[in-house]
Amino acid sequence: MKNEETQVLHIHCADEKGLIYRITEILYSHGLNIVNNQEFVDAKNSYFFMRTEFEGVDGIETITNDLRKVLPTKAHISCTPVGNRSVVLMASKEPHCLGDLLLRHKYGELTARVKAVVSNHEVLAPLCKAFDMPFHHIPAAGIDREAHEASILDVLANYAPDYLVLAKYMRIFTPSFVERYPHRIINIHHSFLPAFVGASPYRQAYRRGVKVIGATAHIVTDNLDEGPIIAQDVLPVNHSFSADEMAFAGRDVEKNVLAKALKLVLQERVFIYKNRTIVFD
Amino acid sequence: MKNEETQVLHIHCADEKGLIYRITEILYSHGLNIVNNQEFVDAKNSYFFMRTEFEGVDGIETITNDLRKVLPTKAHISCTPVGNRSVVLMASKEPHCLGDLLLRHKYGELTARVKAVVSNHEVLAPLCKAFDMPFHHIPAAGIDREAHEASILDVLANYAPDYLVLAKYMRIFTPSFVERYPHRIINIHHSFLPAFVGASPYRQAYRRGVKVIGATAHIVTDNLDEGPIIAQDVLPVNHSFSADEMAFAGRDVEKNVLAKALKLVLQERVFIYKNRTIVFD
Amino acid sequence: MKNEETQVLHIHCADEKGLIYRITEILYSHGLNIVNNQEFVDAKNSYFFMRTEFEGVDGIETITNDLRKVLPTKAHISCTPVGNRSVVLMASKEPHCLGDLLLRHKYGELTARVKAVVSNHEVLAPLCKAFDMPFHHIPAAGIDREAHEASILDVLANYAPDYLVLAKYMRIFTPSFVERYPHRIINIHHSFLPAFVGASPYRQAYRRGVKVIGATAHIVTDNLDEGPIIAQDVLPVNHSFSADEMAFAGRDVEKNVLAKALKLVLQERVFIYKNRTIVFD
Amino acid sequence: MKNEETQVLHIHCADEKGLIYRITEILYSHGLNIVNNQEFVDAKNSYFFMRTEFEGVDGIETITNDLRKVLPTKAHISCTPVGNRSVVLMASKEPHCLGDLLLRHKYGELTARVKAVVSNHEVLAPLCKAFDMPFHHIPAAGIDREAHEASILDVLANYAPDYLVLAKYMRIFTPSFVERYPHRIINIHHSFLPAFVGASPYRQAYRRGVKVIGATAHIVTDNLDEGPIIAQDVLPVNHSFSADEMAFAGRDVEKNVLAKALKLVLQERVFIYKNRTIVFD
Repeated sequence: MKNEETQVLHIHCADEKGLIYRITEILYSHGLNIVNNQEFVDAKNSYFFMRTEFEGVDGIETITNDLRKVLPTKAHISCTPVGNRSVVLMASKEPHCLGDLLLRHKYGELTARVKAVVSNHEVLAPLCKAFDMPFHHIPAAGIDREAHEASILDVLANYAPDYLVLAKYMRIFTPSFVERYPHRIINIHHSFLPAFVGASPYRQAYRRGVKVIGATAHIVTDNLDEGPIIAQDVLPVNHSFSADEMAFAGRDVEKNVLAKALKLVLQERVFIYKNRTIVFD
Repeated sequence: MKNEETQVLHIHCADEKGLIYRITEILYSHGLNIVNNQEFVDAKNSYFFMRTEFEGVDGIETITNDLRKVLPTKAHISCTPVGNRSVVLMASKEPHCLGDLLLRHKYGELTARVKAVVSNHEVLAPLCKAFDMPFHHIPAAGIDREAHEASILDVLANYAPDYLVLAKYMRIFTPSFVERYPHRIINIHHSFLPAFVGASPYRQAYRRGVKVIGATAHIVTDNLDEGPIIAQDVLPVNHSFSADEMAFAGRDVEKNVLAKALKLVLQERVFIYKNRTIVFD
Repeated sequence: MKNEETQVLHIHCADEKGLIYRITEILYSHGLNIVNNQEFVDAKNSYFFMRTEFEGVDGIETITNDLRKVLPTKAHISCTPVGNRSVVLMASKEPHCLGDLLLRHKYGELTARVKAVVSNHEVLAPLCKAFDMPFHHIPAAGIDREAHEASILDVLANYAPDYLVLAKYMRIFTPSFVERYPHRIINIHHSFLPAFVGASPYRQAYRRGVKVIGATAHIVTDNLDEGPIIAQDVLPVNHSFSADEMAFAGRDVEKNVLAKALKLVLQERVFIYKNRTIVFD
Repeated sequence: MKNEETQVLHIHCADEKGLIYRITEILYSHGLNIVNNQEFVDAKNSYFFMRTEFEGVDGIETITNDLRKVLPTKAHISCTPVGNRSVVLMASKEPHCLGDLLLRHKYGELTARVKAVVSNHEVLAPLCKAFDMPFHHIPAAGIDREAHEASILDVLANYAPDYLVLAKYMRIFTPSFVERYPHRIINIHHSFLPAFVGASPYRQAYRRGVKVIGATAHIVTDNLDEGPIIAQDVLPVNHSFSADEMAFAGRDVEKNVLAKALKLVLQERVFIYKNRTIVFD
């Protein structure tokens, strides 16, 4: 029996002449109905990326095996049915990103199952209740970071999410936590032109009189706020904005950029390579 | 002897299973060094587009012949060395688009040879002289449209340009003129949100109090200002702008959008199909 | 006893020399603590606008009377406490604008009391329930436009809203309905560059291959979709978007532009004059 | 005899109740025809800014004296006829910003007299010649920074410019040079989201995979690249851009932002206060 859902094939490997030919020959021989096909070669690193969206096939294991025979030995090959991913959202006190994602999920805009919300505060519980979304309050007060993360991991174990989405979760994870979800944690943070390092970035941005504020959605790696960037956007501000008003105005761009990044990830449009993303949008 | 320059292969035809495989097999068998490869399928019309950038090959006629054997009978196949195009610019009185293109050309930003400027007015002659660019003043006063266009065609005949770029050329061509340069005339015009039809669009936009003005670069077809769109952009305005100030502010977006569109065309990134463009950027 | 809340004074009238001096003399003589003051003169129509935000005063009637003595006879003077407005939202089937406004209201971002939602369909009832927001389903099927509007007016009578916000309410009001809420109905609609008149605008935009889609928030007047514009924004699209995907992508810009326009109105930043807005942002 | 040109009055001082009233009383008593009037209060610092554009007055010294009597003792008052400023441009090797400003100047878009170009390289001499603009080549090779700057100051002395505009001038000035033109040097530099400190910012931005690049025009102070920001803008990039292509794409936004900033300064729309700008646009 045929599987009619859309699947996405990801291939990335060292570049060689004839890769597209070799790959498409196999896809053609298996009768794949290709809906969309995109390739990119990182010329500097001589590295090849290909995203193929197709419909109506089973026996993907056979295809993968056949591909492996014609690709370089270290090639990465994966195939994912679109809409099959699961997500847990994490947040602290601010409702704008969380509420926006819950709304989009409720109305089918996110091709994923959002399974629960985890927070270090209680304030967003009513919002989750309004959306019938399980809410786990795991307070961080009075325990050390490792103990707090252990409690979070216990809760997450029940959901086995493919992705964690940090919707203004204001705590930093330890490297060992991040390792549990390699390239599977998505974060949003404010950004400036130029950037301001250290505490109170909006206050620093205000003092410098920036005319543009922005937001960056990125993959979380050990290197705090410096993982591969998925999406960014900005909005104009002016001298009449206080630091607080800049932060407030930044909410709109934060929520849109996070939602955009999550949708790109869920549609399997994002490859990560050497701390950069390749985004086939 | 090898030809080391970059060339771009364009293929578009009715979509079929296995097209990419069949095409890349031939490209591979001829040893093409593919720098960049992009495909798009217009699902609604079941139509296939492919742009392949490659280096270092001669015998492109043989390749084209081989491709023709494996593609649908009505397939369009063309191959163009990048940087080989010639352009004539046309303008009326406003210097912003013309001056911008002349500057970009002087500093090698346009991968084309700009051969001359044709104008129905004399006012831009000194600008062309400053750039050592041949300037042809072909006044339209006192003669009919056909006679004027005949004079223009006489001048153009000496240059045999691949493209005509209307850098604020404020006259409308007859269908028979447009037919002489099918899909080879690029125009820029102001655009609004919503659009205003008829005379004095900036005046109408002012009266409605628009908050955004824009510009659209498009291919000229018989259907005035309604040919396929190549590029668009906008900039914000507010109540303090008079109609004249809107037109003035619009100049910056007009010149950037026209330059962007021209560069896309010259890099062979634009396909035209059913009054739409497919732009591989 | 002092009133500590922020109030906004609106003055607009024919321009004359010395207006700011005469107005600020009176405000100063009453000891107003001015937080923010903005003026604009529409030079073309020789018309003056002033918005003054102040704190901590009562006896606004006395001030208004004093102002009237020094201003042109037809001057408009009004004073509104910020945060005092009431709003009823109207929607049809699409949840994105309604959900976004309900979220912003729940978290105090809208300085107004949203009192209820009125819809010609039932599908958004659960969303309103989740936010504990009264929902009135007033079906339009099987009755004429006047009867339907009469039912809506009956419901609205209970709430006496200052503003009606059409959050993708897909029906057109009769002139007599609009007259009941003069300059007090705010609508959002998609916009294109160029605009497409008539049915299925996204389909027309797709056929033309537009590279930018947008949204316009405006005041509803008799002239359908042509009332004064409050806010506009755009987002880029490309050839890979189907008409449906353009409409879908347009949702993000629609909800942001509507929220922005509503906030501007609620902060008393919008003047309407001759089918244009003056927006002090 | 009346002076019919437009002038701009700048006042900034500690905020007090009644400032606008006291100022406009004096302006009214002198019969000023105010075209435009804008105020801003920096609430955090309790500091007041006012920009008044007026026509047709002489005896501005009397007005200034009268104003001084009613304003706080340390008030700054200045009055400048619009279009009266002189500018010297400085550049190194890149033509995009310089060419753009020379074009705008040639066509009357800059309300200033551009008097000359100074460069540490010779490569832009032909561009200046094309625009009949005096060009001074002052090489920096083989001499120390102070000697180089002394030569520049010698040349500048002949022009006595109000503003120096650094149109991609790639050398850093000593504090003593900057002191000679306090708040009168305007610079453009690339900006990123987030910013990258140190050498090769485009290379760093590439490595991180940024999706947005930008430009910042600012006043030069001792604090390199950290003076008050006048204008900023961004443009989108993606994974297909090499570091060089990012730098190249950045040229369009650099030239537009620099031109915008210069126009704001020349229209006397920029106030500087505590390392921030107040921009009345």
